[in-house]
Formats: sequence, C-alpha cells, structure tokens
Amino acid sequence: MLFGVTMGDAGGVGPEILLKSFGRRELHHPVVVFGDLGVLERCNRELHYGVPLRRVSRPGDYIDGPLNVLDLGLLRAEDVRVGQIDARSGAAAREYVVAATRAALEGEIAALVTLPINKEATQASDPSFSGHTELIGALCGVKEPVMMLACEQLIVTHVTTHIPLREAAARIKRERVARVLELTWHALGRLRPQPRIGVAGLNPHAGEHGLFGREELEEIAPAVEWARGRGWSFEGPLSPDTVFYQAVCKRRFDAVVAMYHDQGHIPVKLLDFEGGVNVTLGLPIVRTSVDHGTAFDIAWRGVASTRSFVRALELAARLVAAPAASEPEL
Amino acid sequence: MLFGVTMGDAGGVGPEILLKSFGRRELHHPVVVFGDLGVLERCNRELHYGVPLRRVSRPGDYIDGPLNVLDLGLLRAEDVRVGQIDARSGAAAREYVVAATRAALEGEIAALVTLPINKEATQASDPSFSGHTELIGALCGVKEPVMMLACEQLIVTHVTTHIPLREAAARIKRERVARVLELTWHALGRLRPQPRIGVAGLNPHAGEHGLFGREELEEIAPAVEWARGRGWSFEGPLSPDTVFYQAVCKRRFDAVVAMYHDQGHIPVKLLDFEGGVNVTLGLPIVRTSVDHGTAFDIAWRGVASTRSFVRALELAARLVAAPAASEPEL
Repeated sequence: MLFGVTMGDAGGVGPEILLKSFGRRELHHPVVVFGDLGVLERCNRELHYGVPLRRVSRPGDYIDGPLNVLDLGLLRAEDVRVGQIDARSGAAAREYVVAATRAALEGEIAALVTLPINKEATQASDPSFSGHTELIGALCGVKEPVMMLACEQLIVTHVTTHIPLREAAARIKRERVARVLELTWHALGRLRPQPRIGVAGLNPHAGEHGLFGREELEEIAPAVEWARGRGWSFEGPLSPDTVFYQAVCKRRFDAVVAMYHDQGHIPVKLLDFEGGVNVTLGLPIVRTSVDHGTAFDIAWRGVASTRSFVRALELAARLVAAPAASEPEL
Repeated sequence: MLFGVTMGDAGGVGPEILLKSFGRRELHHPVVVFGDLGVLERCNRELHYGVPLRRVSRPGDYIDGPLNVLDLGLLRAEDVRVGQIDARSGAAAREYVVAATRAALEGEIAALVTLPINKEATQASDPSFSGHTELIGALCGVKEPVMMLACEQLIVTHVTTHIPLREAAARIKRERVARVLELTWHALGRLRPQPRIGVAGLNPHAGEHGLFGREELEEIAPAVEWARGRGWSFEGPLSPDTVFYQAVCKRRFDAVVAMYHDQGHIPVKLLDFEGGVNVTLGLPIVRTSVDHGTAFDIAWRGVASTRSFVRALELAARLVAAPAASEPEL
C-alpha cells in the first residue's frame, strides 16, 4: 500500500517536514512525494538532513530505502523564495495536488496526504482558487465535502466551514446535517468499534427549547432522528458548551458533529494545537492533511513540528486499512 | 467586609452547597445568606451536616461562628419539593435575589454571590422573568451587563450571550465591543498587574482579511484601536481557534474577549467544567455566581460539588478588595 504526499508550497515548511520526518524514520508507511526533486535536494543540503532521495516517474516505480519523489519539474531550486508568497511556488503547489489527486483517483496511490499550500500564493496564478480542499473536491467531482478534524483526544466533523458566521445559521438544513451524520458515521466506523457520536446544537444551550433559536428543533433534531432510525448511535442536539466536555473528559462520545468552523476548531486546537489532522470526508478517495499552514515565518529553519504530518499519514493508513462499515450505503 | 449569598432554588443544589462548604470551612470570608432558614434547617438535618445556623434580621447583625441567615420566611420547609420544578420555590428564589441586590446597592453587603435558580420555576410565577443576570441588571438599572466567565486557566468576557447565533453577528457593533473592552480592562486590572487581553474575531480565521465576513474590519478592529489608544493592552481581532490556545497554553493573554456565548463557553467548560465562575460586569455592585444550574437530578443528596461556589466567593472578595484601575473612567 503506497501513500501519495504532496510537497506543499516550496517556500513553506512542507519540504523540511517531509525530509525531517523521513530522516527520523517517523513515517511507517511507504510514501511517494508529488513535488519538485530539486527543491527537496536544496532543502536537504541547506539543513544538512542527508536524506537519500530518488526520482520516480510514476508511483509504481517506488522502491524501499530512499525517499521516492515523483518529480514534476516545475520549479528551479535556486528560484524558490523561502518564507515568501511567490506566484510560481503557489502555481507549482497547485499542480502537485492535481497530479496526486489524479493518481489517487486512478488507484496508483491508496490515499493522499497533503502538506500546506498558501492561498494567496496560489491565487496569484489562479484567481478562482478558493482552497486546498475545494480544489480536491472539484477534481473528484464533489461539491460539498465534509471537514473532519482529529487530535488524540477529540474527533470533530463540521456541517459548515469557511463561511461568515452570519451565514452559517442559514446553512444548517436537515439534508446537509443528515449527510454529515452519515459521513461521520462511516468514517468513525473505520476508526472505532461501535462509535458513539454527539451532535452539537447551533445556539447557546442548544436553543433552550426554542428560546434562543429554532434550528435545533427544525433542522438538527430531525436529522439526528433519521440517523438513529438507521441504527446509528447519535445523541443530540446537545448544548455546545457541554458536548465537548462530555466527549473529552467523560469519554461519552467518540466524536462530535459541530455546526460551524470554530465550534469544532476551538476545542481541538486548545487540546492539541500542533497535532491536529484534517480529513476530507465525502470524496471517492481518502485524503488527510496537516492542520497547519505554510508557516513562512519559520520555514526552512528545521524547527517546524512534524507531528501533524506524521499523524496525518497514520490516520490515512488507518482509514484505508479498516473494513468499510457494514451498513448499506444510501 | 460582609458578602451576601443567595440560597438559590430551595429544591436544587444551592442549600446543600451552602451548608457543605460552610461546614468544611471552605468559605474564607464572612457571609450572610439571603434565603429561608427553615429550608436550610431541613437540609442540614436530612444530610446530617450539623452546621450551626443563626437567624439575622439584617446583614449588620452578622456575628462570627454560625452560618448567618437573613430569613425571608417565604417557604415552609416541609413544602419544598426537592429536585422538582416548583412555582413557590421559583418565586422565593427570585425574592432572595431581589433582597440581596438591594442590600448590595445600599452598601449593607460588599458583594453578591448567587446560587442557582431555575428559569422555568421562576417563570411560573413571573412570566416576564428572562434570567438571573437580567433580573439583577434591571434592579441595578443596567440594560446590557457583560458576562465574564473565569476558571483557573482562562478568563473570558462576552460581547453577546443568550441570543440565537444568527442574531449574534448583527449585534457585533463597535460601540458594544468598545464597552466590553472597557469593562474587561477594568475588571482584569483588579485581578492582574498589567493585564494583556486578546480579542477574538467573529468569523473563521477572523474573517481572513474580509473573505469570510467583514465584522472584524468594520466593527471589532476599530474598537480594539480605540482601546489601544487609551493605553490598554489589547490585541486583535485574532483567529478564534488560536486565541484561546495562545492564552491558555502560551500564556500570551490574561483574558480573551469572545464575540458570542459558545466561543467563550466551549473553552472554559472544556478546561474546568465544575470550577467556572460567572461574573457580571457593568453593574454598580460586584456580583459573582456559580456557573452551574440547580442540578435537580442530584439535589439534596450531598454529592454536589462546592468548587464553583467557593471560587465564586473568592473571586468576589478579590474584586472588592483590589484597588480600582487608575485610568480615568469614560
């Protein structure tokens, strides 16, 4: 089983995280890198990592031993402006993702693990670029993928993500909530036996019986009922300020479904800022990602943490290896 | 310095928390209870606490030794329906708050610490009752007090609280944000030397330069600038999923200003579910409160935690004792 890893923006922390984690033998699964070999060679040299690198022209040429790089030949190593927003690096980072996603769709790699790209750098050559996940979704023909964020103590999925908070409430519709519950159930089924999942409400105290909002009564509760009717172990909608405590401290839930970005991100980032892994659900491929950015301010200094990347690869391997859930798909 | 404590709903955990914490000598400041002596005597008897109780007719009659109770004589002990919503208990709980707030306004007590009341029980006799804090605000002639939530690791104040999430965004206005910053600054000045305070944005990634919402640019940033112009140490608006990590794990901030209820409550409740203390800022009196409800399901069994109450009294004492901030009031 071979895993595809994208190098991320050349001027960010992606290259060094790849080299450092490989050199430290933190990667316990075979990987092939989609990136620029020359850039990795330069980073390897400047940081004295001494990682053996090898060019492959397709994933199937992988061999054990060195770090195998599917060299897309897009950047000249000496042109890379470390720690800076650069249109060429941004455009190249986009192409690594395109190539790796296609390889995953064609079954050449078992899953895709992505290192960070910079939105502004990529937009400089592709103004329509709205995000890493959105690009992968579009390449897979999926319109609204679901973001799962996982750290050791807590797994969260999100009904909405990168939209203004004032729009989030309007997007809480029972069909969308039901779809997120379904994807959450199938993903958790690959990670835990008999998962129990809590569903957060949208409003303070989950609306307090309609006193502070009706989304719980009209949209979330019907979706939870639908999911329970399928025999899936969901509870909610529960008060947002209590459900994470119950999941983490009382071990009452294996995961929580959050209604908006920060409802899920605040607890995960507080529990484990560096170790979070981002998983995209709803795609025909398995894709995980580090949960940090290009960190230009510390790039190519060898100080970036490999923790999120190592865990992203582990989680991808677990998702690929586990048997699919036994329920019939909808 | 004498502190007034309201007994809370007679059928909830208030009476036992009072008796247990007093009996264990956890209360390090003189308190006078606003409540029903007969109810406390019954609870004391049933739970075998053996706390010496004494009736006073006004706070000034306080003496050291026993637990001093300003007996409002509203409930017959044998009528109290433990663990149940009861209109008489709810009406009495409201009167304890009214009497204690008046005593605080008249300077008979230095501060007010409240035990939980049940909203539905109180609404049974007063349909206009919307909440504990709202009642105290109205008695003090203050329309929009500010909720501060404090645990050992984190202090948060809130720009909005008990409103539907879809309305919260519309309430983020620079005047309100500025008022909350001002109250936060003065409160923190009583608790910490040279406080540093982080201000959360409203939207994911604090709006990412206007991409996911403009409240940061148009409302929050101008309020932060105004506060900084007064020499107050505020930073923001910052990404909501990062600012709590920076405050708690990096000790970069002594407090965080949150834009809505769950933005502040999720991290505090995750860090310390039982030990949170609620403080009402913007009143002419000092008021703190436990951060839990009547917990009818465990009431009068002696198992309720005294932790939040003990810390609420401590915090009230610190707020009363500290010198006022040195800046001129607006």
